[in-house]
Amino acid sequence: MSPPADPATRNGSEGFSYSRQVKFYETDLAGVVHFSNYFRYMEEAEHALWQAAGLTVDRAGAELGYPRVSATFDYKRPLFFEDAFVILVRVHAQSKKTIQYTFTFTRGDTIIGAGSLTIASATRDFQSMRAVDVPPDVIPRLKAAAGQHDDA
Amino acid sequence: MSPPADPATRNGSEGFSYSRQVKFYETDLAGVVHFSNYFRYMEEAEHALWQAAGLTVDRAGAELGYPRVSATFDYKRPLFFEDAFVILVRVHAQSKKTIQYTFTFTRGDTIIGAGSLTIASATRDFQSMRAVDVPPDVIPRLKAAAGQHDDA
Amino acid sequence: MSPPADPATRNGSEGFSYSRQVKFYETDLAGVVHFSNYFRYMEEAEHALWQAAGLTVDRAGAELGYPRVSATFDYKRPLFFEDAFVILVRVHAQSKKTIQYTFTFTRGDTIIGAGSLTIASATRDFQSMRAVDVPPDVIPRLKAAAGQHDDA
Amino acid sequence: MSPPADPATRNGSEGFSYSRQVKFYETDLAGVVHFSNYFRYMEEAEHALWQAAGLTVDRAGAELGYPRVSATFDYKRPLFFEDAFVILVRVHAQSKKTIQYTFTFTRGDTIIGAGSLTIASATRDFQSMRAVDVPPDVIPRLKAAAGQHDDA
Repeated sequence: MSPPADPATRNGSEGFSYSRQVKFYETDLAGVVHFSNYFRYMEEAEHALWQAAGLTVDRAGAELGYPRVSATFDYKRPLFFEDAFVILVRVHAQSKKTIQYTFTFTRGDTIIGAGSLTIASATRDFQSMRAVDVPPDVIPRLKAAAGQHDDA
Repeated sequence: MSPPADPATRNGSEGFSYSRQVKFYETDLAGVVHFSNYFRYMEEAEHALWQAAGLTVDRAGAELGYPRVSATFDYKRPLFFEDAFVILVRVHAQSKKTIQYTFTFTRGDTIIGAGSLTIASATRDFQSMRAVDVPPDVIPRLKAAAGQHDDA
Repeated sequence: MSPPADPATRNGSEGFSYSRQVKFYETDLAGVVHFSNYFRYMEEAEHALWQAAGLTVDRAGAELGYPRVSATFDYKRPLFFEDAFVILVRVHAQSKKTIQYTFTFTRGDTIIGAGSLTIASATRDFQSMRAVDVPPDVIPRLKAAAGQHDDA
Repeated sequence: MSPPADPATRNGSEGFSYSRQVKFYETDLAGVVHFSNYFRYMEEAEHALWQAAGLTVDRAGAELGYPRVSATFDYKRPLFFEDAFVILVRVHAQSKKTIQYTFTFTRGDTIIGAGSLTIASATRDFQSMRAVDVPPDVIPRLKAAAGQHDDA
């Protein structure tokens, strides 16, 4: 596990590591991170991976966007204010038109939880969200940035 | 389907209807509601159901809290600024220590998506999140408020 | 003051009343509404007033947007989960290119705080945010919807 | 101005620099950061300063909290997705019971805006939010961490 000091580092073996610290406004009255924020954390890790791959999900004039098709998270242990934690991202080519990511959250040796995002490649006409093929270089570049040499 | 005019109404047959309008700050640069906010909408609908049942997930001095165990959402169509939509909630007794809800989102005749939340009944010591039995009256009262007479 | 039961009602004398209930995800670890959410509440009240006036700050193909120029809030008493509160909005024509609103928040007889938003009328090219004159009908319509017959 | 590469660095002369990149979920349908998020950014910078001073606004069993008394922001230029920007924080001892911070936001040579937060030192009984004196070491330690040697 890479140390939390580094905001976004490539893991030695497999998967992209993104480090984060819990902000005050992400907690709720139960004293822990609100469950909805884990979805924001997953997206942050996704976009950090895109940046590491020299890509972005948003570029002025881009014809494509990447709406979410599904999102899941399983919560094991809570996160508290100022906790430093690490998200390990892995990329899966689910179909020609979608990308699936899986995420595991850890704080030191403690497993916080795990989740997934499935996104579609779609034309920017969001009224219809017409799915199109993911551009051919995207998944290889993301996998390379994540240090994934297999085809999992 | 009940009309959006009424903020939280009991559906005639089955399930609890919660109506909502999209706020500006819930949209993102793609011009649609950010996917993380659907989890907040589900929680809002859950708590409106608890209120309709004369219950609350938070009461000063309460020994129990209801942390989330898992959350999922499948996105079909986007929601836009000022859209009025309806969430239909159904309650499922998954186990002695957990409650599962399912949610369907519609805007008029358009299906927006569907999701689920599984929550645990836990002692308020969130460091351990020790699960305990859901108090016996909670699920019957939630089902009654949701107009669910079956045992689905 | 109108009762909290009604989501958005015109106050008899002066100012537009918007009623709201605190959501769980708006609280923080201190057990109260996070201070940043008061700015979202003010915007909600602003947009409810625009809707009451038959207007919207966003319309597909609109040439104008309404970026914020300044925002302030003074906090007197905290808001808690499930609190019902009322925001009274008043409109002020500050200049040809800007609109100022003032907001007072109350929960029953308790004053929660007061704030202000100043917005500009601007062309939709946000890179430059070039201010333009507010369309002439906007402020009269907002004031009428707010029941403001004076020129305060 | 320190470069954005470093997440939180002490500025050589005066003020504490906190660097940040805009997240996707912080944007709104206008394509820019929602105005409410600037208040979250200011709080993030505040807490990073506390951490740099070896302090925290929240500690289990702490008798004191730091509710906000007032908050302001003046917006000059918008922030866009993935923009890197820097917040310069300065600490001002406003009274025995309050601390005031001022913040300036810049993206490269562009001034984004400026704001302020006034916080009170208060007993943890938030129902009353009874203000008490700020502990005597807090402001000197914050100013030292911010490199402020004057008494501005």
